[in-house]
Amino acid sequence: MTSMRIKSPRLPRLRKRHLVKQTAGMEPAIQGRMEGAEETALLRKMDAYWRAANYLSVGQIYLMKNPLLRRPLKRDDIKPRLLGHWGTTPGLNFIYVHLNRVIKEHDLSMIYLAGPGHGGPGVVANAYLEGTYSEVYHEISQSERGMQRLFKQFSFPGGIPSHAAPETPGSINEGGELGYVLTHAFGAVFDNPELIAAAVIGDGEAETGPLATSWHSNKFLNPVHDGAVLPILHLNGYKIAGPTVLARLPHHELRSLLEGYGYKPYFVEGVEPLATHRLMASVLDVVIAEITGIQQKARAEGFKTRPMWPMIVLRSPKGWTGPKVVDSVQIEGTFRAHQVPMADMDKPEHIRILERWMKSYQPEKLFDQKGSLRPELAELAPKGDRRMSANPNANGGQLLRDLQLPDFYDYAVKVLRPGAAQVSATTVQGQFIRDVLRLNEERKNFRVFSPDETASNRWSAVFEVTERCSTAEILPSDYKVSPDGRVMEVLSEHMCQGWLEGYLLTGRHGFFSCYEAFIHIVDSMFNQHAKWLEATRHIPWRKPVASLNYLLTSHVWRQDHNGFSHQDPGFIDVVANKRSEVIRIYLPPDANTLLSVTDHCLRSRNYVNVIVAGKQLAPQWLDMDAAVKHCTLGIGIWDWASNDKGFEPDVVMACAGDVPTMETLAAVDLMRLNFPDLKIRMVNVVDLMRLQPASEHPHGMTDKNFDVLFTKDKPVIFAFHGYPMLIHKLTYRRANHSNIHVRGYKERGTTTTPFDMVVLNDLDRFHLVMDVIDRVPKLGSRAAYVKQALLRKLIDHKRYIREHGEDMPEVRNWKWSGEKFGD
Amino acid sequence: MTSMRIKSPRLPRLRKRHLVKQTAGMEPAIQGRMEGAEETALLRKMDAYWRAANYLSVGQIYLMKNPLLRRPLKRDDIKPRLLGHWGTTPGLNFIYVHLNRVIKEHDLSMIYLAGPGHGGPGVVANAYLEGTYSEVYHEISQSERGMQRLFKQFSFPGGIPSHAAPETPGSINEGGELGYVLTHAFGAVFDNPELIAAAVIGDGEAETGPLATSWHSNKFLNPVHDGAVLPILHLNGYKIAGPTVLARLPHHELRSLLEGYGYKPYFVEGVEPLATHRLMASVLDVVIAEITGIQQKARAEGFKTRPMWPMIVLRSPKGWTGPKVVDSVQIEGTFRAHQVPMADMDKPEHIRILERWMKSYQPEKLFDQKGSLRPELAELAPKGDRRMSANPNANGGQLLRDLQLPDFYDYAVKVLRPGAAQVSATTVQGQFIRDVLRLNEERKNFRVFSPDETASNRWSAVFEVTERCSTAEILPSDYKVSPDGRVMEVLSEHMCQGWLEGYLLTGRHGFFSCYEAFIHIVDSMFNQHAKWLEATRHIPWRKPVASLNYLLTSHVWRQDHNGFSHQDPGFIDVVANKRSEVIRIYLPPDANTLLSVTDHCLRSRNYVNVIVAGKQLAPQWLDMDAAVKHCTLGIGIWDWASNDKGFEPDVVMACAGDVPTMETLAAVDLMRLNFPDLKIRMVNVVDLMRLQPASEHPHGMTDKNFDVLFTKDKPVIFAFHGYPMLIHKLTYRRANHSNIHVRGYKERGTTTTPFDMVVLNDLDRFHLVMDVIDRVPKLGSRAAYVKQALLRKLIDHKRYIREHGEDMPEVRNWKWSGEKFGD
Repeated sequence: MTSMRIKSPRLPRLRKRHLVKQTAGMEPAIQGRMEGAEETALLRKMDAYWRAANYLSVGQIYLMKNPLLRRPLKRDDIKPRLLGHWGTTPGLNFIYVHLNRVIKEHDLSMIYLAGPGHGGPGVVANAYLEGTYSEVYHEISQSERGMQRLFKQFSFPGGIPSHAAPETPGSINEGGELGYVLTHAFGAVFDNPELIAAAVIGDGEAETGPLATSWHSNKFLNPVHDGAVLPILHLNGYKIAGPTVLARLPHHELRSLLEGYGYKPYFVEGVEPLATHRLMASVLDVVIAEITGIQQKARAEGFKTRPMWPMIVLRSPKGWTGPKVVDSVQIEGTFRAHQVPMADMDKPEHIRILERWMKSYQPEKLFDQKGSLRPELAELAPKGDRRMSANPNANGGQLLRDLQLPDFYDYAVKVLRPGAAQVSATTVQGQFIRDVLRLNEERKNFRVFSPDETASNRWSAVFEVTERCSTAEILPSDYKVSPDGRVMEVLSEHMCQGWLEGYLLTGRHGFFSCYEAFIHIVDSMFNQHAKWLEATRHIPWRKPVASLNYLLTSHVWRQDHNGFSHQDPGFIDVVANKRSEVIRIYLPPDANTLLSVTDHCLRSRNYVNVIVAGKQLAPQWLDMDAAVKHCTLGIGIWDWASNDKGFEPDVVMACAGDVPTMETLAAVDLMRLNFPDLKIRMVNVVDLMRLQPASEHPHGMTDKNFDVLFTKDKPVIFAFHGYPMLIHKLTYRRANHSNIHVRGYKERGTTTTPFDMVVLNDLDRFHLVMDVIDRVPKLGSRAAYVKQALLRKLIDHKRYIREHGEDMPEVRNWKWSGEKFGD
Repeated sequence: MTSMRIKSPRLPRLRKRHLVKQTAGMEPAIQGRMEGAEETALLRKMDAYWRAANYLSVGQIYLMKNPLLRRPLKRDDIKPRLLGHWGTTPGLNFIYVHLNRVIKEHDLSMIYLAGPGHGGPGVVANAYLEGTYSEVYHEISQSERGMQRLFKQFSFPGGIPSHAAPETPGSINEGGELGYVLTHAFGAVFDNPELIAAAVIGDGEAETGPLATSWHSNKFLNPVHDGAVLPILHLNGYKIAGPTVLARLPHHELRSLLEGYGYKPYFVEGVEPLATHRLMASVLDVVIAEITGIQQKARAEGFKTRPMWPMIVLRSPKGWTGPKVVDSVQIEGTFRAHQVPMADMDKPEHIRILERWMKSYQPEKLFDQKGSLRPELAELAPKGDRRMSANPNANGGQLLRDLQLPDFYDYAVKVLRPGAAQVSATTVQGQFIRDVLRLNEERKNFRVFSPDETASNRWSAVFEVTERCSTAEILPSDYKVSPDGRVMEVLSEHMCQGWLEGYLLTGRHGFFSCYEAFIHIVDSMFNQHAKWLEATRHIPWRKPVASLNYLLTSHVWRQDHNGFSHQDPGFIDVVANKRSEVIRIYLPPDANTLLSVTDHCLRSRNYVNVIVAGKQLAPQWLDMDAAVKHCTLGIGIWDWASNDKGFEPDVVMACAGDVPTMETLAAVDLMRLNFPDLKIRMVNVVDLMRLQPASEHPHGMTDKNFDVLFTKDKPVIFAFHGYPMLIHKLTYRRANHSNIHVRGYKERGTTTTPFDMVVLNDLDRFHLVMDVIDRVPKLGSRAAYVKQALLRKLIDHKRYIREHGEDMPEVRNWKWSGEKFGD
């Protein structure tokens, strides 16, 4: 290693003064522990383990063959294109080996979340060193041949990506799109008292918005029944090309910032390996002692006040221990170490540098003749489930227990005849959710998440059994706030989503309720989670986890406070772009269908379930028995609103979504008055994916069944909750597609209030009837009169709305006649 | 007012000790200024102005009639449904009147950004009080009738939304989706040395990720040539229902946090109006003096070091001056004041409370008989353009000057014959952008924004004329970093987008370059900006602003580092959901077309332009003359790659996107070898919106023209950059739609590296030819042999990729033959 111990004057400066100041408060016993000869021997062994991880990391990035450098390195041994990232990796490896020591020493249950992007080589190397990798991928064995495969597969076609990924044992956080490592870590430890989640935050990642706010997660963590997060801010100073914000703060500002976030930061800064090992080990002893101290106190005395949790700031050179200079340019400690120190490997000199670099780790002292890690080093790793790469919390399906669910029939809304009851659907759903919380109180494996909208979304019933969670100051004027609350509210959709993902991936259950308008904020997080699920379905050792359930409410059709300026029903478009095997979209038209769908979602595994449902008072259509059947089929003819009596209809009135369903029924009512001979079929869609061909989605209908419902050639007027194009996208292959006319949400060149959302979008009953008139030739001359009357009515209606601020009475008070139409 | 001066023990506690400590450092002269009798008189007048704004705010939320309460209030005077938000409003009004004072006193150019959601009543009230509202909306005059209309229109069908919106004079920040007020403010003041952007941050908004990171914008602000941002963190303690994170921090933590962010916080905390006015005025004098001091020093001496900019923390009760108790429940100072203190106005007692509340502001002392603000109060507002509601920076189109653009022909890549040159398209674009920067150096009205990807996206040429911007510490190991840099790099897509929006909305130009994979992070910000543009097109007094231009590169087909796990070409799907009048999507197939499109985008106004283009070396197809013509048409037949010679072809090979275009041409090459008699037409799409019907998009083609290009009944094989469904969505109404077979990006249940992206998605040349074989019957028996040969070739190809990590030589080295196919 000697040749690689570099003290560059340009590397991050040591700030010993600050460090000493910080460590001044340590227990002398702890401070002294790492100073004896025995400790030095241990630290040297840890250094060797670190070198092994670094060696394997460089090997993954560069080599295809000759993994142990048994013969001089040749161009042919090196990958044709280099796509790994070295810069962050030695720091990740450094942290890993130090965590291993404290895990062993204290028998800790710990998982490792690698925030920095493209840190894959490091976490894979460590999973390999502790044996887990070979256990789950037999062909990557602890041998020269296995090592060669380990190297070649990395960032290679048919292999593994360059970041921590679902394929990486021990990972629950993908180092792809950055920003979520802290929220994932906190989500993982809620209700997980034995777990410590070590979250390494890159200084690039630290600049993202989601990361910047997620430091505040400590205001929601209760040491009595939650585990601990150990944030390790890894400052190596550079992103791809530019300096990072946090690395360039004056020390007192960085300290202020972290203390302002509520943490007690310990600074570890170093270049020289052994001294830095010693420092890191000492600090880690203090930090672990503080964490366990906080937990023991809280668990003995009950929750008193939010503790200052310790955290570590590790300042180390980017590309630490890598080549110092290549082509006369400094590499180590600069942005040039971000990706690969030498990219053009056609230069023989570069091959020599690579060889010297890898040999500086002294592989012959690390691996035996067979290519296995030497036993005296292997024993440094924890054993079995204590290995971070094998901790069951990072393969949460192993720990998953079914939720105790109440019988959703017990919450059924009485619907004596269609349209008779007026109910807020999500209020009823909230009562069901309340009892899910109650029944699983002991197991502590279910929480609900929302950006401060739980009550607004009409789930207030949950506050009969629990509270909003806060471990910050609570005032008498607060309502239902407690450090034991199971309702996670913070005005950050990113944090809600990240917490929930962490909670689910460690084997628990949850629900995210959100205004539809604002769920686009987490589009990219949804994408990443959906792709995670897509991948895990094809990884046998990953056990299924509970689905990620969304309730989207305050939806576009009845969002009373947010005008057109931030309305958008397009989240389901984003969702529909993902693989059918992991996504489900439900649009229950009333409370009983919502209950049935909710029960189904909470029982499901490995999906993202999106439920869109209104919170306002609205008419109810189906009794529970009918609702369950309807939801089971996912789509169906409502015979009580149809008069085709099983014959070919003249027109199909289709709908999906609660408001579109109501308008469709009102249109049917108008038609039956005006055109009693018209044969109408009313079709409602709950499970949107039913519309797709069976070949495209597991819930998809065969063409035959689709044609039976929608006919092959009759006009279909489809009233839809979202952008009309989504219906076309789902149905364009169907025989009758050219006759499907969709009315849905349209963008408007105006911001206005939403009372008149339905008429502004021409989704009203009058337009639906006019659509039928325009498309069904047999209505004859009477049609012109009816159409004119409807147009006049619509003008009255719009004028009334602008005058009075609500629908005209005839519309507002409309009720389904209550008789079976067809009878 | 006496009755409304409440000192509730449960209200946020005054922290005088801290305040005194902070103010200890003030100049005695300044501290004393607001203490004399004259000052007290001024403060009393300001209080009256504040009451007027509060009165108008309550009126907007509640009343439809009887605006001046000339007769006893009746149910009929009150809106049927109440949809405004009171809680945040008095604080917004309080800040506004105080800013007015310093604007007048120092003749400042200032704009007001209202971060808190639903703060609409306050900013509208102030725009009305200073006359701007009546100037732009004549019917909302300074009279009783005007006031009645002002009240009624608020959150009412056909009226205005409940948040600051495009319709609100003086606004460049919508209080809808929260989190962007600070980035907008910083964007507004970059290169705007005279401007001060006062940014009010709600404590709800402060919890969002984008806001949490955007505090760090001060590391990019240079007082020499930029203006100043005055952040005012408004802590009223509650969101919709729960307490806020920042309001519950211990004072020392909050101070630490803000100091850690690099600000010098001044705390204004109060309940009693006059005392709080006095405090706010004193603090504001200090703050303005500090801002001007920092600027004067920097402008005299040049930039030395990042200053600690002052900021204000205003802690005031939620719903300040509103009803203290309603129905025996405390309202003021609690979350119950968030929306409306009394919602059910059918209760006569509530009407009485409302009347007493409004009368407590003493409207008869504020407005004259006609209903106009009394002159002695009106004179408190600044005049003309100095009014924050009339500052031209908040209607940036007024200030917009055209960019000086170089002649893009000068950057043309020589393309002697199709496929001859190998060029990185974005590298060439970067040279053009470099000279845009150079030509507009004096005007300082153009910047580029990127999450640390400018060099990675191959725009390195810009560093020949400018640097990355940073006012933080700069080290010798940094490359091209300077406090004068015009390249804005921070690892937060949210900040890049927010800065750029603020920069554009104040009348400047810019470009955002981003990896395609990560642009979904700002889906919702794009939505809000697009909707802003949609709205402003219908507001005559809003002048057109420069378009928001995206370059999306490192795209799905050649993203070398990010595997499937976070690949997603769906941003253009989100974009395509917005109104056609504001969105444009370009997929230039090579460097010359990219140049032409870039020039066009930089000249355009009021659009969001999305350009997707690769950064890797790739063959070039069109010389500049052909490129310009092709881009002008947006879609066209490439006759040199077609052999139908103007007759009806047997098959149309369509493509959009650079990699799909190359694969299509390679497929055409294969076909011409194997099926020399087949009549092939090759169609390339640059401007995606050309595919839409003319009725749907201004760039859309008529059916006739579409049919001429794509035929009415021949097979179309369409190779597409994004999700195939987008092509179906755009073309489903066309006559030949059922014959359009699209190959594009598919989600995969695996994460892997992207070398083999094309074959993994079956978008390769072999599949395209097989598609033709499957769809063109006339190919006869030879087709079966060719298809089998292609399948075998494909297996070879896939095996080669997995073995060697790159395409097999035949594919890798393929070149277009260079001859005109048709000749």
